[in-house]
Amino acid sequence: MSKELEQLKEILGEISDINNASAVLGWDQQTYMPPMGAEARGQAQGTLDKLAHEKFTSAEVGKLLDALEKQVGDWDPDSDEARLVTVTRRHFDKDTKVPSKMVSERAELTTMGNQAWQEARMKSEFPIFEPHLEKLVDWARRFAELYAPYDHVYDPMLDIYEPGMKAADVKSIFDDIRPKQVDLIKRISEAQQVDDSVLHQPFDEKGQWDFGVGVVTDFGYDWKQGRLDKTTHPFQTTLGWGDHRITTRVYPDFFNPYFFGTLHEAGHAMHAQGVAESLKRTPLYNSPSLAIGESQSRMWENLVGRSKPFWEHYFPKLQKVFPDQLKGVDVDTFYKAINKVAPSYIRVEADEATYNLHIMLRMELEMAIMEGEAEVKKLPMYWSDLFTKYLGVTPPNDKEGVLQDVHWSFGLMGYFSTYALGNLVSAQLWEVIGRDIPDIEGKIRSAEFAPLLQWLNKHVHAPGAKFEPQEMVQRITGSKINGDAYIRYLEKKFTDIYGL
Amino acid sequence: MSKELEQLKEILGEISDINNASAVLGWDQQTYMPPMGAEARGQAQGTLDKLAHEKFTSAEVGKLLDALEKQVGDWDPDSDEARLVTVTRRHFDKDTKVPSKMVSERAELTTMGNQAWQEARMKSEFPIFEPHLEKLVDWARRFAELYAPYDHVYDPMLDIYEPGMKAADVKSIFDDIRPKQVDLIKRISEAQQVDDSVLHQPFDEKGQWDFGVGVVTDFGYDWKQGRLDKTTHPFQTTLGWGDHRITTRVYPDFFNPYFFGTLHEAGHAMHAQGVAESLKRTPLYNSPSLAIGESQSRMWENLVGRSKPFWEHYFPKLQKVFPDQLKGVDVDTFYKAINKVAPSYIRVEADEATYNLHIMLRMELEMAIMEGEAEVKKLPMYWSDLFTKYLGVTPPNDKEGVLQDVHWSFGLMGYFSTYALGNLVSAQLWEVIGRDIPDIEGKIRSAEFAPLLQWLNKHVHAPGAKFEPQEMVQRITGSKINGDAYIRYLEKKFTDIYGL
Repeated sequence: MSKELEQLKEILGEISDINNASAVLGWDQQTYMPPMGAEARGQAQGTLDKLAHEKFTSAEVGKLLDALEKQVGDWDPDSDEARLVTVTRRHFDKDTKVPSKMVSERAELTTMGNQAWQEARMKSEFPIFEPHLEKLVDWARRFAELYAPYDHVYDPMLDIYEPGMKAADVKSIFDDIRPKQVDLIKRISEAQQVDDSVLHQPFDEKGQWDFGVGVVTDFGYDWKQGRLDKTTHPFQTTLGWGDHRITTRVYPDFFNPYFFGTLHEAGHAMHAQGVAESLKRTPLYNSPSLAIGESQSRMWENLVGRSKPFWEHYFPKLQKVFPDQLKGVDVDTFYKAINKVAPSYIRVEADEATYNLHIMLRMELEMAIMEGEAEVKKLPMYWSDLFTKYLGVTPPNDKEGVLQDVHWSFGLMGYFSTYALGNLVSAQLWEVIGRDIPDIEGKIRSAEFAPLLQWLNKHVHAPGAKFEPQEMVQRITGSKINGDAYIRYLEKKFTDIYGL
Repeated sequence: MSKELEQLKEILGEISDINNASAVLGWDQQTYMPPMGAEARGQAQGTLDKLAHEKFTSAEVGKLLDALEKQVGDWDPDSDEARLVTVTRRHFDKDTKVPSKMVSERAELTTMGNQAWQEARMKSEFPIFEPHLEKLVDWARRFAELYAPYDHVYDPMLDIYEPGMKAADVKSIFDDIRPKQVDLIKRISEAQQVDDSVLHQPFDEKGQWDFGVGVVTDFGYDWKQGRLDKTTHPFQTTLGWGDHRITTRVYPDFFNPYFFGTLHEAGHAMHAQGVAESLKRTPLYNSPSLAIGESQSRMWENLVGRSKPFWEHYFPKLQKVFPDQLKGVDVDTFYKAINKVAPSYIRVEADEATYNLHIMLRMELEMAIMEGEAEVKKLPMYWSDLFTKYLGVTPPNDKEGVLQDVHWSFGLMGYFSTYALGNLVSAQLWEVIGRDIPDIEGKIRSAEFAPLLQWLNKHVHAPGAKFEPQEMVQRITGSKINGDAYIRYLEKKFTDIYGL
């Protein structure tokens, strides 16, 4: 290892330590922090973020990167070392471009924006949030200008979450699948509807908890390097090598939120637990992108956890946990219930067939606003129109419409699309898995998940953030990210369930 | 506020943020961290400590202190600002004196020393720990030399925990009380012995937990800025302004450890919760010393929690929680049981009458070793001899003797004495409280703790670390730290219980 590489790794290691500390603070804040701890926590968090930023954007890191770029030509381009230089340079150029004044301005805008959003959402009044969103959009536009020239003003924001992807790429993927999903939903709506009342019964917390814990243990979530706690909103967080925690919530009279939420977060955590140890304390100890991350959570939640073979194994076990609630119910009825398709107003409650449409609507509006084609103050109207067009129903108010998600209040424009891309990637990977692992359905039917997890570990998890998302998907599947596999998956699954 | 003071407070604020983050990491490590998280946690902790140390010992802090010392003559010497300069200078001079090489050397010695101690203790074999303790003592001697000239080689270590106190001060206090405590114990041993079998029964965890929580809530521990969790060893920790947590442990068949341990840690936490908000994010947001801190924990644990009036109120309540275990037991029997005096080998299990002797023995040995008067390898022998002399019984092995405490393995020489000093201070304060608060016993008998907590808030807690321990005790009680009040307290209490 060259002297410069050693020095760079030393600095990146310390930054990674600070970021890990920051993650511990964040986890504690969501789980166990007493209410009056918030003020000091905010200050500690701010100081750690500032220290990490200062350390990373220092002239020293710049000089080391310059020196290393002269050496890297002699290295294996796929080696950890070569990729570390490339990825660090990417982050360095991005982070040094934003003046510190704009960084602190953003912190202020999001603090106030989030407060206003909370009030607006509670009262279901968009105008309370509107002036703040105007400022956040203005900030995002100025942020984009730092990266001019660009193909589209939306690109620099998107690039934070999906390195290397352009708005045009995503738009062309979405334009391809949108009519196919709209058509599928229409056909489903004309078929015999599914009754999911079996899911809406009282289920005691301990029963739910232990059943979910049992399933993610079977999946291979490693409790020696993780734990499960309760929070308002479920999440997964990495607090350092060997510490990948998940959180969840329990509804006392609805089966889905705890169970599928826990599977989802465990999917993220198994991804994090599978990144090669050799990458720890570097920026490569991460996911290539949010979409690749989401492909893992959605795979365990949906392709595994909402599949027929899965429930052929687990439904009899669930019946033992809830004998009164599930007496006389057969696995087919239960399987259909958890896969019921119905247009709903709220994204996080959407089924597999409608989910992506919620995302496309958001991306269309984000792009139009960033372009200046649409006015922020008219967002509720645009939302209503598009929603009705795609999903055939009209949200009754702002709370169940334009105000439902927290993301924009934190200035996270461009983030949503990664959720839909994650669905697509999960299906693309699943087709390769179907070829690589003999009888994957039979394995799921006997709760034998090790071959699947090992496959994911090797192909998706171990490389960490060495590859950009498109490169990773291309290497594994032979194609770039596209919607073909997901559409095939939806058609097959719902043709069967709805007898289309 | 002068420009320099503002700049200094800005830097101290950031250091305090880093230390708070470090405290969150420490709390999580003891409570909820999964086993494999230890490695990354150690690195994050090390990096934060290094950052805080670098920031504090920077030339900039030195210059600001120099400038401020020219201004401070015009300020009220008791003001927060004047005290902040004094205390910061004290810490700065101490911290800049130790070469960073010695700091990292110590980290290595304590890591290895603690590992060896754990093995030695498990096997009850002192020789496993001995070579490590030799090195730690050698380090402590070299540390002392950095502060030469000193009155006694023990002083620089002691000064870390009890600012301004000398070995000679502590020795003279201990020499005064030792024969009095030895004599008291002898008289007790000749009296009718107390039966404490009532405490050794199965007590279910939830019953114990809720009862203890109820009592510390009555005390005035503020749950909005705290919480209670389980750990192997109970402790209190401050994670920032408004966040003062405690931990405890529950024994299924012994009443004392959970109940009195929780009262003890709540005493520390109420101290921390009472420090003036104006001192937050400065080095003054702290206790003056470990002994002052211990005076608070011991006061709530013993002077309140092991008193007759306390149990006149709470015993009937405890009987309702454990009706089978406490049927037919009267409050007097219970009161005597929790105050049973009997020489025991283990310090943390010692009663109020014998506890200080455990400490004096340790301090005598520490001083002799630091002086080079005693050989480390002969410690088990010295321990046995002194223990037999003071307590009349001889430990059967190293595990229940010289190897019982973790402190030396972390290089904490000089730390133990603060425990005994805390006992003495608690009694000194208690005599003043008895004069200032009319009928304090009656108030305790009716569980009316607000007047006591308010008194402590005003006199002991609010000033934070503005005063050195001797100055604080002098200001409140009119005398420096001494053993008179504690001996009076012991004599009165145990004369009554044992009919001496």
